[in-house]
Amino acid sequence: SNYVKEYENYFGTTLLDRRSDKRTDSKWLSKKQSHPATVYILFSNLSPLVTLSGGRESSQQPEVKLCRLCYKDVQQCMNQTEECTLIFLGVDLQFDINLMAACKGKVQQEDEEDGLVAWFALSIDSASAEEFKQKHEDCYFLHPPMPALLQLPEKEAGVIAQARSVLAWHDRYRFCPTCGSATKIEEGGYKKTCLKEDCPSLQGIHNTSYPRVDPVVIMQVIHPDGNHCLLGRQKRFPPGMFTCLAGFIEPGETIENAVRREVEEEAGVKVAHVQYVSCQPWPMPSSLMIGCLAVAVSTEIKVDKNEIEDARWFTREQVVEVLIKGNQHSFFVPPSRAIAHQLMKHWIGMTANL
Amino acid sequence: SNYVKEYENYFGTTLLDRRSDKRTDSKWLSKKQSHPATVYILFSNLSPLVTLSGGRESSQQPEVKLCRLCYKDVQQCMNQTEECTLIFLGVDLQFDINLMAACKGKVQQEDEEDGLVAWFALSIDSASAEEFKQKHEDCYFLHPPMPALLQLPEKEAGVIAQARSVLAWHDRYRFCPTCGSATKIEEGGYKKTCLKEDCPSLQGIHNTSYPRVDPVVIMQVIHPDGNHCLLGRQKRFPPGMFTCLAGFIEPGETIENAVRREVEEEAGVKVAHVQYVSCQPWPMPSSLMIGCLAVAVSTEIKVDKNEIEDARWFTREQVVEVLIKGNQHSFFVPPSRAIAHQLMKHWIGMTANL
Ligand SMILES: Nc1ncnc2c1ncn2[C@@H]1O[C@H](COP(=O)(O)O)[C@@H](O)[C@H]1O
Ligand SMILES: Nc1ncnc2c1ncn2[C@@H]1O[C@H](COP(=O)(O)O)[C@@H](O)[C@H]1O
Repeated sequence: SNYVKEYENYFGTTLLDRRSDKRTDSKWLSKKQSHPATVYILFSNLSPLVTLSGGRESSQQPEVKLCRLCYKDVQQCMNQTEECTLIFLGVDLQFDINLMAACKGKVQQEDEEDGLVAWFALSIDSASAEEFKQKHEDCYFLHPPMPALLQLPEKEAGVIAQARSVLAWHDRYRFCPTCGSATKIEEGGYKKTCLKEDCPSLQGIHNTSYPRVDPVVIMQVIHPDGNHCLLGRQKRFPPGMFTCLAGFIEPGETIENAVRREVEEEAGVKVAHVQYVSCQPWPMPSSLMIGCLAVAVSTEIKVDKNEIEDARWFTREQVVEVLIKGNQHSFFVPPSRAIAHQLMKHWIGMTANL
Repeated sequence: SNYVKEYENYFGTTLLDRRSDKRTDSKWLSKKQSHPATVYILFSNLSPLVTLSGGRESSQQPEVKLCRLCYKDVQQCMNQTEECTLIFLGVDLQFDINLMAACKGKVQQEDEEDGLVAWFALSIDSASAEEFKQKHEDCYFLHPPMPALLQLPEKEAGVIAQARSVLAWHDRYRFCPTCGSATKIEEGGYKKTCLKEDCPSLQGIHNTSYPRVDPVVIMQVIHPDGNHCLLGRQKRFPPGMFTCLAGFIEPGETIENAVRREVEEEAGVKVAHVQYVSCQPWPMPSSLMIGCLAVAVSTEIKVDKNEIEDARWFTREQVVEVLIKGNQHSFFVPPSRAIAHQLMKHWIGMTANL
């Protein structure tokens, strides 16, 4: 069922309830900011602070994990630098009664305690990041983000996807696109407002004030014979890697027509039937990958060399082999946490853990 | 089948092949701009220029139609004003050999004739719009755009959706969001580039340069008993209108989780299973409505008064009546060209013309 499908969606599951109603409750937000149970995750240059865990028993491989900091860890950073951005991410889905009881002593009596564990993402500048690393030697900022981000525990990936996308928006959208003025951040990081009093963006509701999400189609294209699929590669891919075709949905376009346009543009193959399978947030910086099966009605491949380097029909057996045995001699595909991998699995009928 | 489904998708079908490969071919673009077969559609304040057609025989209701202009109609506007924006929309899907032959005489001999009929959208300022209307008395700019846009012929709606979304992007994103500088339009209107030489947006590829598409979930929520659905209304709706709940997908969120979050936020109802049905571009200014069926696992409604005014469970019979007989006494729903209407039809099993 769909429900199971999503549950294993990397970047798509999260530990948090976003509680968007709290974004406008500045009293609650500021109380939670200094609450001892509050969890902070730290970013520098859009990369999260992580640490290695496990691996103490020599048999176990060390695992990359998000550093979960508390207020006193980040208090100094937050006061020191002006270049820091704070995003309210949500509250723990699992209400942890024990943790709350443990914190209770530390909380001032006059605070009403709602028992919610708030999470914030904090982005700091490079100088503060250096300082922070010196004080916390076991921590480091993931760099480059990909493919390292795919190594985080499943449940933390959704938190990262949310935080990194919103932070990337603030990073790249500092000025009002309507009038070019400076902006200020509001609503826990989910809104930005132009500071120029008579800017047209202040009249009515405009998407310039809200984070950007870029919908992308990614498709497993099936040969008319049902026994081959179309995979391609871009020049910048590691040698030998092939994956599903993909592309940004354009204004005024449906998902299904975007699939047809992209497959025809990139590979010269015509597609008729398109079927949605599942989706995956992709925080590079803020895409939503919409995964589809697409049935081709032509077979001749004409590669558009501006977009991709190569595209070929692969047999079902080749795909089964590469997915089950890992590297074949001739080619390999993205890791299982990428939606392209899941679409291929879906096609060959291994839908159980899609 | 899906294929039929999309074919009746208002705003989702188009007369045009976008031919994005031509966007970087400035020689071809400029040749087509002055080609006598080229079609121009005109916008002022994001509203298209239309005219009334038919209705000559007294039995027929006049129909609103896009004005299809040619180069000589718009040439003066384009030269006169600096405030005009030109978007290349694509080429006619139907290669019209007769039209091309008719034009051939007028085309200079040295031009290679590829037989493609190009379409452009041209946005002009209010002063030029006034002048234009005085010269073409049978034409007017649709205002306000909604619900009038829903009255255009089905096939023209997709052209409008594409053009209006791209023009709205240029209208609201005039300055570089990364540095606040002025920008210039490129690639037939599909790219905008910062004019400041050392702007970080010029290093690498950034979404600041490309049109924005905002994915929105819209869902027909089914009661656990299978015989009721949840419809709501916003304060700004006409009295008596109820429709499917909807909301913007947030960064780092899947389609399915956005459905669950929005239904819980707006109506306090919990949803488990979510199934994609179909989608619709919505050029107000540039949304992609992703339509789903959602199965509720709780029934008590707690309306969030900030987001909606009312939400109720309606019986299947009520929905059948309102869709088939039009207005019931108690409530009505959006017109058939809105995806909400189609989702309701889909639910009651009238999927033939979905
Ligand atoms: N891209 C966006 N464009 C406009 N409004 C947005 C966007 N993202 C989130 N919102 C929020 O959604 C609300 C409007 O939602 P709606 O009633 O569905 O049109 C606004 O008041 C904003 O708070
Ligand atoms: N929102 C967007 N962000 C980045 N690139 C975009 C966007 N929309 C369209 N593009 C185009 O898509 C190309 C990158 O596509 P891809 O190879 O799929 O990452 C860029 O070179 C742009 O021409």
